Amino acid sequence: MSSLRGVVTDPAARGLIDDAAVLEVSGTKLVLTHDMIVEGVHYLPSDAPEDVAWKLVAVNLSDLAAKGAGPLGLIAGYCLAGDADWDDRFVRGLGEAARTFAAPLLGGDTVAVPEGSARVLGLTAIGSAAHAPARNGARPGNLVWVTGTIGDAGAGLDIAAGRLEGPGGLAERYRRPMPRLAAGQALAPHVDAMMDVSDGLLIDASRMAEASGAAFVVDFARIPLSGDFEIALGNDRPARLRAATAGDDYELLFAAPPEKSEEIGRIADRLGLLMTMIGEVREGLGLRLVENGEEIPLPSRLGYEHGA
Amino acid sequence: MSSLRGVVTDPAARGLIDDAAVLEVSGTKLVLTHDMIVEGVHYLPSDAPEDVAWKLVAVNLSDLAAKGAGPLGLIAGYCLAGDADWDDRFVRGLGEAARTFAAPLLGGDTVAVPEGSARVLGLTAIGSAAHAPARNGARPGNLVWVTGTIGDAGAGLDIAAGRLEGPGGLAERYRRPMPRLAAGQALAPHVDAMMDVSDGLLIDASRMAEASGAAFVVDFARIPLSGDFEIALGNDRPARLRAATAGDDYELLFAAPPEKSEEIGRIADRLGLLMTMIGEVREGLGLRLVENGEEIPLPSRLGYEHGA
Repeated sequence: MSSLRGVVTDPAARGLIDDAAVLEVSGTKLVLTHDMIVEGVHYLPSDAPEDVAWKLVAVNLSDLAAKGAGPLGLIAGYCLAGDADWDDRFVRGLGEAARTFAAPLLGGDTVAVPEGSARVLGLTAIGSAAHAPARNGARPGNLVWVTGTIGDAGAGLDIAAGRLEGPGGLAERYRRPMPRLAAGQALAPHVDAMMDVSDGLLIDASRMAEASGAAFVVDFARIPLSGDFEIALGNDRPARLRAATAGDDYELLFAAPPEKSEEIGRIADRLGLLMTMIGEVREGLGLRLVENGEEIPLPSRLGYEHGA
Repeated sequence: MSSLRGVVTDPAARGLIDDAAVLEVSGTKLVLTHDMIVEGVHYLPSDAPEDVAWKLVAVNLSDLAAKGAGPLGLIAGYCLAGDADWDDRFVRGLGEAARTFAAPLLGGDTVAVPEGSARVLGLTAIGSAAHAPARNGARPGNLVWVTGTIGDAGAGLDIAAGRLEGPGGLAERYRRPMPRLAAGQALAPHVDAMMDVSDGLLIDASRMAEASGAAFVVDFARIPLSGDFEIALGNDRPARLRAATAGDDYELLFAAPPEKSEEIGRIADRLGLLMTMIGEVREGLGLRLVENGEEIPLPSRLGYEHGA
């Protein structure tokens, strides 16, 4: 989105560094986001159209979750590429995901694209939030947390692509990510910064650190791995590195004052969702990794970097 | 959008027959629309990127205008196709159009597409409205009106494509459509139905008639043509037919009770925008054309039909 930066000046855009725009209308915080996925870039051509639709809905709702918003509705904009069966299954998938997350489909636009063009699938999600934590609010002294487990979807992609063997639950996490809507809304009043983890835990943590003008020290040993992930890839340092740099987690990364830890634990218990303290915010700038109290070097690649 | 109809059931979607979704939030009517344009389908590959951006903004704001809404913001979703100069000029054009219509750009998403794929450019516009007239509210006894002049952009496209010679103002109306935002907001409280004319006056009038369950009788001789259009194509029946079936007008078509005619005239004077009574709504169903009091046959093609 860097190319848009020069022309996007409204404060509601939050300088384009956030997951979504936040607009105040009649005292309500409206949260708006638009994410697109492209055939062959963001999903495998062999992926089921229902799963592609689910992912499109989930990635947008994950942006709402990161801003503490509940969904008001979805507007789809997508290409028809001459395969009516694919399109029908995609639309059914949109409907299924919309129902699952109580995010009504409100309309949209379809366009035909010339022969040979990649499918481009876009979705706008709108939600409302009582609190809409920004990405740039982390402060020295905060603890850094993440919901759920990390790296499952990345391993699942490798399984789906036939590059890895492992439990079916991992492929399911790649195929059907679950936006953390309830957790986002419950956490929002208690956190200083929140975002979703979509491009890899390390790269997203480094973005939150940069946006906040602070240093994030992440304890590598604390990165939460699932049992399925450990079966497929183990839990040594290379496995953790793979988990922490893989994309498509759609978990929430947040920073909160230490005195909120008890409340965060209560929310985790209530929702039955793991919430793990993985590090802390310090004076300084950038991301640092430690393991067993010793600093370890950052990998050369922190996660998925967008071309734009 | 027919394929979405089975899964879009929320009343805010207005059954997908309307130009936009209307969502009530904290007593405010939010109007949401998403329109896409595709290279080689909705614009000429030779069109200037600034003009393509303008058109993308204008077609979405025209949907807001049709629902009586003023813009709150825009969210862009577009493809990068490996031509940085094109992309820069497109983004500058987005900024220019956004400033012109006081519709702040709030963010969005960019995606890279594989080599050889057509550019797909999407935009979501959100606005708020005090009144949001639907497309389906026209009632027998209403008069049918249209803003501005009809057919200019269609002639302008032919000029831009080198198929016609004529005044430069026509090409300008194709290149830089002006969404009727002020007119839409001023008219909204006084009309029973309103929509924008994007696919051709006749096809859009037939859609309003069908949605309203009424018959529209349009007086062919009353269709407002510009001086430029008459210079290029004359004003005989074939010329009027060409005007009334050409797309990209982005004028407003509305139906209002006869007792509102005086108020409509005052609004037209205040805004300096032509508003022409072109027909009336009767019991029955469908579109009929008359000229000098005599019924004339409908052309076989009423305007631009979407593939979807």
